[in-house]
Amino acid sequence: MDNQRGALMRAEIDEQPQALDRLLDQGAAAIAATAAAVRERRPRFALLAARGTSDHAALYAKYLLEVRLGLPCGLASPSTLTGFGARPDLTDVLWITVSQSGGSPDLVESTATARDCGALTVAVTNAPESALAGAAELGVDVLAGPERAVAATKSYTNQLLALYLLVEGVRAGAVSDAARALPGQVAAFLDGGRADGRLHALAQRYRFVERLVTTGRGYAYPTAREAALKLMETTYVAAHAFSAADLLHGPFAMIDADRPVLAVAPDGVGSAALEPVLRRLREREADVLLVADERVLHRWGGALSTVEVALPAVPEELAPVVQIVPFQQLALEMAVARGLDPDAPRGLAKVTLTH
Amino acid sequence: MDNQRGALMRAEIDEQPQALDRLLDQGAAAIAATAAAVRERRPRFALLAARGTSDHAALYAKYLLEVRLGLPCGLASPSTLTGFGARPDLTDVLWITVSQSGGSPDLVESTATARDCGALTVAVTNAPESALAGAAELGVDVLAGPERAVAATKSYTNQLLALYLLVEGVRAGAVSDAARALPGQVAAFLDGGRADGRLHALAQRYRFVERLVTTGRGYAYPTAREAALKLMETTYVAAHAFSAADLLHGPFAMIDADRPVLAVAPDGVGSAALEPVLRRLREREADVLLVADERVLHRWGGALSTVEVALPAVPEELAPVVQIVPFQQLALEMAVARGLDPDAPRGLAKVTLTH
Repeated sequence: MDNQRGALMRAEIDEQPQALDRLLDQGAAAIAATAAAVRERRPRFALLAARGTSDHAALYAKYLLEVRLGLPCGLASPSTLTGFGARPDLTDVLWITVSQSGGSPDLVESTATARDCGALTVAVTNAPESALAGAAELGVDVLAGPERAVAATKSYTNQLLALYLLVEGVRAGAVSDAARALPGQVAAFLDGGRADGRLHALAQRYRFVERLVTTGRGYAYPTAREAALKLMETTYVAAHAFSAADLLHGPFAMIDADRPVLAVAPDGVGSAALEPVLRRLREREADVLLVADERVLHRWGGALSTVEVALPAVPEELAPVVQIVPFQQLALEMAVARGLDPDAPRGLAKVTLTH
Repeated sequence: MDNQRGALMRAEIDEQPQALDRLLDQGAAAIAATAAAVRERRPRFALLAARGTSDHAALYAKYLLEVRLGLPCGLASPSTLTGFGARPDLTDVLWITVSQSGGSPDLVESTATARDCGALTVAVTNAPESALAGAAELGVDVLAGPERAVAATKSYTNQLLALYLLVEGVRAGAVSDAARALPGQVAAFLDGGRADGRLHALAQRYRFVERLVTTGRGYAYPTAREAALKLMETTYVAAHAFSAADLLHGPFAMIDADRPVLAVAPDGVGSAALEPVLRRLREREADVLLVADERVLHRWGGALSTVEVALPAVPEELAPVVQIVPFQQLALEMAVARGLDPDAPRGLAKVTLTH
C-alpha cells in the first residue's frame, strides 16, 4: 500500500534528469529564437504573472532579469487587470506569464490584456497548444512531458531551466556548460539518495512536525517558497517561507525548539546573507536543516546547522534547479510517513481555475 | 499584571484616530507638494522597497499605483542591488521605499543605489531625519508620532493613508471626503469594541489555535498579510496569508476544521472575488471569521462564515485603513489570553538591521 502512495509524484521526481536533458536537447534552439525576438524589442521593464508553483519559477526569473539583464522587474497582480479593470500603458514592458497547464482563466485574460496594453507577452508553459500560449505573442515550451501528479515537480525544474535559457538568450549568450551539467548532477544526487536513503531518514525525523519555517535569500528564496508549498500541499504541515532578511522582522518571534528551520544555501551571495541569520537561530537553539552547496557545507562544517543535505557544486544562479529536489523528496516521504497520499491531496485539482 | 501586558501596543492601537487626523491635518499639504513633483517627472514604472509591516503598506500602494494611476509596478528585491550588485537602468522609474524607522541599512543602500541608477526616489517614513529620508530625493512623513511598541500599528495605518494621499495627489485629486471620514470611522469602531468587548471574546475563541490562515484579494490582500504577521509576532501562532486566488492552489489542502480561516472582504471587487473561495471553504466545513464591510455582511447574512466582525462602510481602495484594526486588537488580546506580552516578543527589536 505504502509503495503505491505517491507513485506518480515519485516517478516524476525521478524523471527530472531526462526532462532537463530533453529541454536542453530539443528546446534550447526555440528558446534562443524567442530570446532573440525579445532582445530586438529592447524591453525596459519586466512583469511576471503566475500562481502556485509557477509563481516561484517567476520569482526566480525576477532575480535573473534584475541581476543578469539589469531590467527593473515586478511580479504582476493579475487581479488589477482582470478584477479592477486597470489599463496601464505597457509600452516597453516585457510581460512573462508562467503556467504549467496554460489553462488558468485569469492568467489567460491578464496576458491578453497586457498584450492589448502594449506589452511584449511571452507564455512559458508545458502546454504549447494551451489558451495561454495562444494569448501571448511569444511562447516557450518547457518540454517537461505530461505531468500527472497534483504536486508539480518536473514542470517546476524545467520552468527554472527554461527561464534561465530565455534570460541568458536575451543576453545573447550561448548555453553554458553549467546548464549542460545539470541533468547529470540531478541524476547523481537522486542516485546517491536512493543508495543511502537520506531523505527517507529525514522524513522520519520530521514525522510529527506540525509547523516549520523555510528560508533562503536571493536566488535561493524561490526555493524556500516552493519547498514550503510542496510540504504544505502534500503533508498539510504549516510551512512558512521567509526571505532570510524578512525572517528577522516579525516572524523571528515564532522560532523555537519545536519549529524547525529548513534553510537553503547556494555558494555565493545567498549563503553570505544567510550566515548571520543562522548564527542568530543557533543562539535561539533552533533546529536547522541546511540544504547547501557542498562547498558551503565544507566551509561551515556543521557549525550552523543540526542536520545537513549536501548539494552538488552549481553556480548560484542555476542552483535552484538542484536545490528543490531534496525538498520534493522530503515532501513525498513525509506525506507517506504520515499515512497520506501525496498524489491525492485534499481539495486540490491539477488545473486550478481562478478568475 | 494582565492589564500591563501589551499596554504600549494597546495605547498605540487606540491612538490611530488621532494619528490619522494629524496626517490629514498637518501632512496633506506636504504630500500634495511631493505628489506634484512626482507628477511632473511622469514616471512610467514604479518599484516599491520595504520589509516587514511596511512591506504590506508597499503592497497596498502597488494596487493603488496599478489601478488608480495605471502604472506598471513591482515590489523590489533589495538584495539584487545590495547583494548581487545589479545596476539596472532606472530612468523613468518611481522608486518608493517605505519604512517606519528609516533605519534599515539595506533599504538605505538600495534606495541610494536606485537614485544613482536614475530613479526618482521617495522615502515614506515616520522619521524625516532618518538615513533613509536623507538618501531619497523626495520624502513623505507619515506623522504617526513616536511608535514604541515592537508590533507596528499606528505607523502602518498612517503609512496606508499617506500612500493613498500620495497616489491621489499624483492623479491631481483633492483629498477625498472618504479619506477625511476615516479618523472618525476608526474611532467609532474602537469605541464600539470597547463597549461590547467583541475582540476580547474572539480572542477567547482562538485561545488554543496553533495554525490559521488569513485571506483576501485585491486591496484586501495586504490586510491579510499584515494580519498574519501581527498574529505571528505577538502570539507565535503559525498564521499563513494567501491571496484568495492562490489559496485554491496548493495551500487549500491544508485547510481543515482545526485550521480557521480569517477572511477580509471590502465592498467591491475584493468580496466578489472572495465569495467562491468562501463557498468552497464552507463545503470543507472550515471555520471562517469574516471581517467585512457592513454592506457585505448585510448581503451575505452569515451564510459564508462562522463568526463575523462588521467594519464601517468605506470605499474599497481606502478600506485597508480600517480593516487591519480588528486584527491588531485580536493579536493583542490573543497574546494576553495566552499569557504573553505583545510588547516584548521573543527575539525582536524595534529597528531591524538587515544588510
